[in-house]
Amino acid sequence: MNLKLITNILGFLVFITGIFMLFGIPFSIYYGDNDVPVLLFTGIGISIIGFVFWFRTRKADKSDLGKREGYLIVSLGWVLMSLFGALPFVIHGSIPNYSDAFFETMSGFTTTGATILSDVEALPHGLLFWRSVTHWIGGMGIIVLSLAILPLLGIGGMQLYAAEVPGITKDKFHPRVKETAKRLWVIYMALTFLETILLMIAGMSFFDAINHSFATLATGGFSTKNNSTAYFTSPYIQYILIVFMFLAGMNFTLHYQAIHRNFSFLKKNDEFKAYLYFIIGVSVFITLIHLPYVNFKPEEAFRQSLFHVVSLVTTTGFVSSDYENWAIFSRMIFLILLFIGGSAGSTGGGIKVVRHLLLLKNGFLELKRLLHPRAVIPTRLNGKAVTPDIISNVQAFFILYMLIFVLGAVILSLMGVDFISSIGGVATCLGNTGPGLGTVGPVSNFGHLPEPGKWLLSFLMLLGRLELFTVLIIFTSYFWKK
Amino acid sequence: MNLKLITNILGFLVFITGIFMLFGIPFSIYYGDNDVPVLLFTGIGISIIGFVFWFRTRKADKSDLGKREGYLIVSLGWVLMSLFGALPFVIHGSIPNYSDAFFETMSGFTTTGATILSDVEALPHGLLFWRSVTHWIGGMGIIVLSLAILPLLGIGGMQLYAAEVPGITKDKFHPRVKETAKRLWVIYMALTFLETILLMIAGMSFFDAINHSFATLATGGFSTKNNSTAYFTSPYIQYILIVFMFLAGMNFTLHYQAIHRNFSFLKKNDEFKAYLYFIIGVSVFITLIHLPYVNFKPEEAFRQSLFHVVSLVTTTGFVSSDYENWAIFSRMIFLILLFIGGSAGSTGGGIKVVRHLLLLKNGFLELKRLLHPRAVIPTRLNGKAVTPDIISNVQAFFILYMLIFVLGAVILSLMGVDFISSIGGVATCLGNTGPGLGTVGPVSNFGHLPEPGKWLLSFLMLLGRLELFTVLIIFTSYFWKK
Repeated sequence: MNLKLITNILGFLVFITGIFMLFGIPFSIYYGDNDVPVLLFTGIGISIIGFVFWFRTRKADKSDLGKREGYLIVSLGWVLMSLFGALPFVIHGSIPNYSDAFFETMSGFTTTGATILSDVEALPHGLLFWRSVTHWIGGMGIIVLSLAILPLLGIGGMQLYAAEVPGITKDKFHPRVKETAKRLWVIYMALTFLETILLMIAGMSFFDAINHSFATLATGGFSTKNNSTAYFTSPYIQYILIVFMFLAGMNFTLHYQAIHRNFSFLKKNDEFKAYLYFIIGVSVFITLIHLPYVNFKPEEAFRQSLFHVVSLVTTTGFVSSDYENWAIFSRMIFLILLFIGGSAGSTGGGIKVVRHLLLLKNGFLELKRLLHPRAVIPTRLNGKAVTPDIISNVQAFFILYMLIFVLGAVILSLMGVDFISSIGGVATCLGNTGPGLGTVGPVSNFGHLPEPGKWLLSFLMLLGRLELFTVLIIFTSYFWKK
Repeated sequence: MNLKLITNILGFLVFITGIFMLFGIPFSIYYGDNDVPVLLFTGIGISIIGFVFWFRTRKADKSDLGKREGYLIVSLGWVLMSLFGALPFVIHGSIPNYSDAFFETMSGFTTTGATILSDVEALPHGLLFWRSVTHWIGGMGIIVLSLAILPLLGIGGMQLYAAEVPGITKDKFHPRVKETAKRLWVIYMALTFLETILLMIAGMSFFDAINHSFATLATGGFSTKNNSTAYFTSPYIQYILIVFMFLAGMNFTLHYQAIHRNFSFLKKNDEFKAYLYFIIGVSVFITLIHLPYVNFKPEEAFRQSLFHVVSLVTTTGFVSSDYENWAIFSRMIFLILLFIGGSAGSTGGGIKVVRHLLLLKNGFLELKRLLHPRAVIPTRLNGKAVTPDIISNVQAFFILYMLIFVLGAVILSLMGVDFISSIGGVATCLGNTGPGLGTVGPVSNFGHLPEPGKWLLSFLMLLGRLELFTVLIIFTSYFWKK
């Protein structure tokens, strides 16, 4: 184990955590808030700590980066950034309890968006901005992780679209991971910028616009308002959010292709087509059910349905109304949507559309295989046969995901949380979505949960965000064997 | 497609359906009930219909029995027997609605035990006996199906223990399926006889004893009492039921081995060990949680916990108390138990212990495979490596099961059934257990559900009982292609 290199990279991550805290200061000065000294000293303090570790290990052998180091860096990176990132909330006193602050920050960095705050608007603007920044950094981390690092580590189906990322395979033109990351980040930043402008044109203040753009592109879901995006009743704002949530839930290599005017890529991409048709289909269905609830105004019914379907499928978790009051049937669908997840290679969490697609295709082909046991009947994606070991890995992922969901819900209910809230809370945290059901529903928050429950959910956010295997593998005995 | 042979075998099944109806007549005469003419004429009528079809196709080519014929005979067999088996209830008028009667009979033949009756005791004894007989025939059908027919059809993991059944493989001493079936049926009948005697010694009437034995050995769950087995408060009766539910949930080849004093088979059988330890572990756990609810009487807490754990894991579905009033945590566990299922090769339904075991083992080995992508790391069962295509088939089974569960719950909730009842009802019917949660909970029944919901649940019972694939394959286009 190359501990020096691990320390080096983790030191760098802690360093940038501190630096990014400082970016909220201008807002606090502008709005005359009292959190400037906290952000300044905590930010500088943390970046110094990070810098020292980074600098003192600068001579680490960077070529000696194995799989084990990869798993450790990724998992510890998210944990360390959350541990340090929680400090300003505690030091300022707006979230006095460290467990709460850690939950909030982990929820930020994992782009979950579940909050323990009942009064978001009471937070000073600098801290509010820092909260949104954790989303945005988390989203950046996930793009590079899912498109450049996880495929190399062989995580559940992540190999599948690795071939489509410029820079990963030999026959592509940008041979280096760093180059890939940079190009995708440019897209990420450009989309953030564009959304901010559009939201401002539609009537948001610059502060609200940039915060919501951060939360949208990261498919996070933190809002600057107590009523989440339901505060912004303008249909224009809601449609802008819908479009950008949809874009953020797409594989970012598709944006890259689209910029290079390669639109045939979209047509050939089975996951994108499934993602698009699924969202449209479910939205239309819920619109019909929901019509009586909005006095038969079709546009409003469709907008609200589409908003929540896109928000939950992409695992953003914005809410434009309290869906706990919708028809039982709609709520059942919303619970199921917590298990879909965005596209692979997006900032969205959850199981991912491509995995569902493969599992469905394979499930039905299994019937054909029963009739023709001697024939080789491969499952195909984007016109190409998928190898059986990848299918098996995706199946194992799905089953582990369900197992963790069930265990999580059992443990949470053992802590005294009611049935529906346990199920909804675990599903939404494991899937990095945000709002759950029951007492952790769209207009409620996670603040009232027992303290161990918050740590459990924080761990589940991490597990879900890092595609389960990345974290779980560290707890196995063979990981630590020479 | 050998239609003549299919008609021949289905005719025989309808014939025995009619014959078995007659067996309730002595009870009705003894108790002076009014259902003697109904049972007599319906029984004779149905057996004549069956006999005609059976007799007129007696020259069918019995050697020409392919896979397609196998799937059709099995699926249609269960459906036809339920369609005819429902008639006496309707003709007698005790279940006037045919949808209700079909639900009840399908619930019987699939050994589910879910009932639409709120007043079971109002039924005359002959019909009550016929209701229990549907369980018992269903159980017999499942033993021969799962140990002799499904392995040949290659259904999800069923091949795994085929090798352990005398009569299936060449190196065993009874080379014919018929022989196997007979030997297992002798065990089934002997256990039924033994349980009846023991229940009578413990205080049950002969009628109650034989009915409950039928329901136990088939892991069915129909009781002759409105309060199910909670009517029998004697701890002896409850312990007898626990022991026989446990035996019925075991692979019947293990009983066969045990009779031949081959006990090493038990020790080497991974599924049996998992089944045993899981039941003990969960029961102890629930006992601890349940203690305060029974005034800290340890024996009562343990007996009640063990009873329900065994009842739900084996998919029998007897209830000895209303677990809806237990701790949230216990109810959550009970919901999960609906997804475990008995051992493969038992009369129990559900996903089955062996599948869970394989999926768990494989899931954890997947982590090891990530670290050593070039190594061949097989999943082992009973000390032997399981081939990847069997693992993949079991994974596909699990995922299809979950998909059907989710779709079923959505459709049921679309019919206006509440959230918890939809989930509980679908889980318990698909798993062939019996009692669900909410309005279809342990002390409630399925009578109040909307009519289409009853047909949906009847179909799910059939799907679950026939291991999904057997039924689903008939609905594919490739099944009907030459």
